[in-house]
Amino acid sequence: MNNFKLEPQDQQKLDQLFGKLKTEATHFIGYPCNLGFDYTELYPFLHFAINNVGDPFVSSNYHVNSHELEREVVEYFAQLTHAADNYWGYVTNGGTEGNMYGLYLARELHPEGVVYYSQDTHYSIAKILKILRMKNIMIRSQENGEIDYEDLEETIRIKRHVTPIIVANIGTTMKGAIDNIQKIQGVLKNLAMPTQYIHCDAALSGMILPFVEDAPAFGFDSGIDSIAISGHKFIGSPIPCGIAIAKKENVDHIARAIEYVGSLDTTLTGSRNGITPIFLWYALKTRGREHFKLMVQQCFEIADYAISELKHIGQTAWRNPFSTTVVFNYPSIDIIKKWQLASYQDIAHLIIMPHVTKEWVNRFIADLAQEGKQP
Amino acid sequence: MNNFKLEPQDQQKLDQLFGKLKTEATHFIGYPCNLGFDYTELYPFLHFAINNVGDPFVSSNYHVNSHELEREVVEYFAQLTHAADNYWGYVTNGGTEGNMYGLYLARELHPEGVVYYSQDTHYSIAKILKILRMKNIMIRSQENGEIDYEDLEETIRIKRHVTPIIVANIGTTMKGAIDNIQKIQGVLKNLAMPTQYIHCDAALSGMILPFVEDAPAFGFDSGIDSIAISGHKFIGSPIPCGIAIAKKENVDHIARAIEYVGSLDTTLTGSRNGITPIFLWYALKTRGREHFKLMVQQCFEIADYAISELKHIGQTAWRNPFSTTVVFNYPSIDIIKKWQLASYQDIAHLIIMPHVTKEWVNRFIADLAQEGKQP
Repeated sequence: MNNFKLEPQDQQKLDQLFGKLKTEATHFIGYPCNLGFDYTELYPFLHFAINNVGDPFVSSNYHVNSHELEREVVEYFAQLTHAADNYWGYVTNGGTEGNMYGLYLARELHPEGVVYYSQDTHYSIAKILKILRMKNIMIRSQENGEIDYEDLEETIRIKRHVTPIIVANIGTTMKGAIDNIQKIQGVLKNLAMPTQYIHCDAALSGMILPFVEDAPAFGFDSGIDSIAISGHKFIGSPIPCGIAIAKKENVDHIARAIEYVGSLDTTLTGSRNGITPIFLWYALKTRGREHFKLMVQQCFEIADYAISELKHIGQTAWRNPFSTTVVFNYPSIDIIKKWQLASYQDIAHLIIMPHVTKEWVNRFIADLAQEGKQP
Repeated sequence: MNNFKLEPQDQQKLDQLFGKLKTEATHFIGYPCNLGFDYTELYPFLHFAINNVGDPFVSSNYHVNSHELEREVVEYFAQLTHAADNYWGYVTNGGTEGNMYGLYLARELHPEGVVYYSQDTHYSIAKILKILRMKNIMIRSQENGEIDYEDLEETIRIKRHVTPIIVANIGTTMKGAIDNIQKIQGVLKNLAMPTQYIHCDAALSGMILPFVEDAPAFGFDSGIDSIAISGHKFIGSPIPCGIAIAKKENVDHIARAIEYVGSLDTTLTGSRNGITPIFLWYALKTRGREHFKLMVQQCFEIADYAISELKHIGQTAWRNPFSTTVVFNYPSIDIIKKWQLASYQDIAHLIIMPHVTKEWVNRFIADLAQEGKQP
């Protein structure tokens, strides 16, 4: 392709896109994506058609893969989530695939099970449940975004004859609330449920809680069955990616069924990119746990700074414990657009990621304050 | 991350992987991936967290996206497949997602429909049907890998009360056979089926047939409902990707249902990488249709050369019309491993992609001939 050149008008379009992305990246404070990454050293790997098709733990005839590094990445997250040796997992294309994998496993294990999830759950869960044709009931949320354990208990009580499959949010999308696994286990114990399945959507906070002391437990040692954590959120990556991890015994059950229908892979996707496992491996290897601990601490501090500055200009602002998501009143549509904020009903949020410094917060507050002064 | 360095043993592991990939790429003749790509000019885009979340045709609050170029890529493939103006589509993570999208649409339109697909269909279809919980029946294949139209007709005849959903292979995985859409339409007409749905898995040949005169029609003008074409196969890409296209009226139907369950996106994946749409756009813009025509012609010629050379050393070798897949007798496991060949029962294949020159074929034949001489 080296001999080929873009036509001038196409080159201009490409340059314009580059310029737009560069500008927009300076007003990026509303989505949970850490922009502080640099994988330049790894670009030479993009000369290959790396394809991690199939199970990362099973050797393939397609040798141009990065399965070895992928296994190390999965192992890292298995340790973070206290999976001991009883785990299987892979690097996904992002949160939706990881959540679909967990819920697919749940359905195969409990075909008649009913899925319970809170109002504050990410909309992709509803999409997945529709795709997987799973019965489901939405549970009320508390004001802070956490699932309402009373409503959960009363609702499961009516259906004690079917296995409850619970989607626990380890950090909700809008308010960063954490559904407490211990309390959910308490609900299931009260009702003497003989079978159960808990899947954690830990897209963002799965990379935050392990680095905070006294954070609520959400790992396999607290009785969960599967978990999805994003790679492009707290760690940062130019290509969305994530990690799906599940109990090995459950995956083995599915693997047999998958083999029976003639499929050769246990992953949802067939051809899988081999570059994001290399990115994640590199990020995890160059940044130790101490560094992530510092980053998380810094994000909490900047979040508290943002809350204090928001209050200072007359806003209502708050955050959940262990969350870097700052919730405040819906501003104007201009602010929403300029700063790329997600909003829901009467609230909006900032998500403090490692690239967001006090200077970023100050720029945002200045815009917001300026607007407040206008008639 | 610039301040961070890999530990020496990690750097060594990374270097070893690079070396392995470099070596393996020189023996890459069994998978349908064109290695002749170079996207170096686009690497600066990897400094951004580009995310094409949501519908490429609907504007999003997440501005760091490449939706504009994605729409141009989809439009290109809509033209190739004669979709007129009645289409919707997006750039997927690869074949599985595109096939799942088409079959998901089919299921939502025809919840009681039965899926028919040939024995030679890629194993991922069986996986998808299991995930989507769709009733399905496997149809016999002809010797050349094409679906057996008689068996198809006899099987649908028994179930004339339910909508047939047909997966047509536009290039089967092992033999590159093309299921003839016109003949399939003939079967459905014979049985006077009032409703039907045809999805094309055109992973590889969807980028070959449009550049060959007199190739069998497989586009929307021949009555198909959806199609999946891979981007990393004939075009070539370091990151697997594909295109899913469907009739707009059908997608609108699903979009309403998706909106009803509270989801904001019509794509299967939520966060979607924005870099592969840029890669594909660049490839399509720098290589015109004339160039693809030449590449396809070259692949046919090299395929015929490979057949002749294989016959020359005593092998049985053949290819389907319009296919660059050369089928021959299963060689030894050493050859299979060294040249990364896919095999099935007593056959194996070479897939002649644009990077495969006569010199590549000669190297392969030399290895095979050498082996034949051993005791």
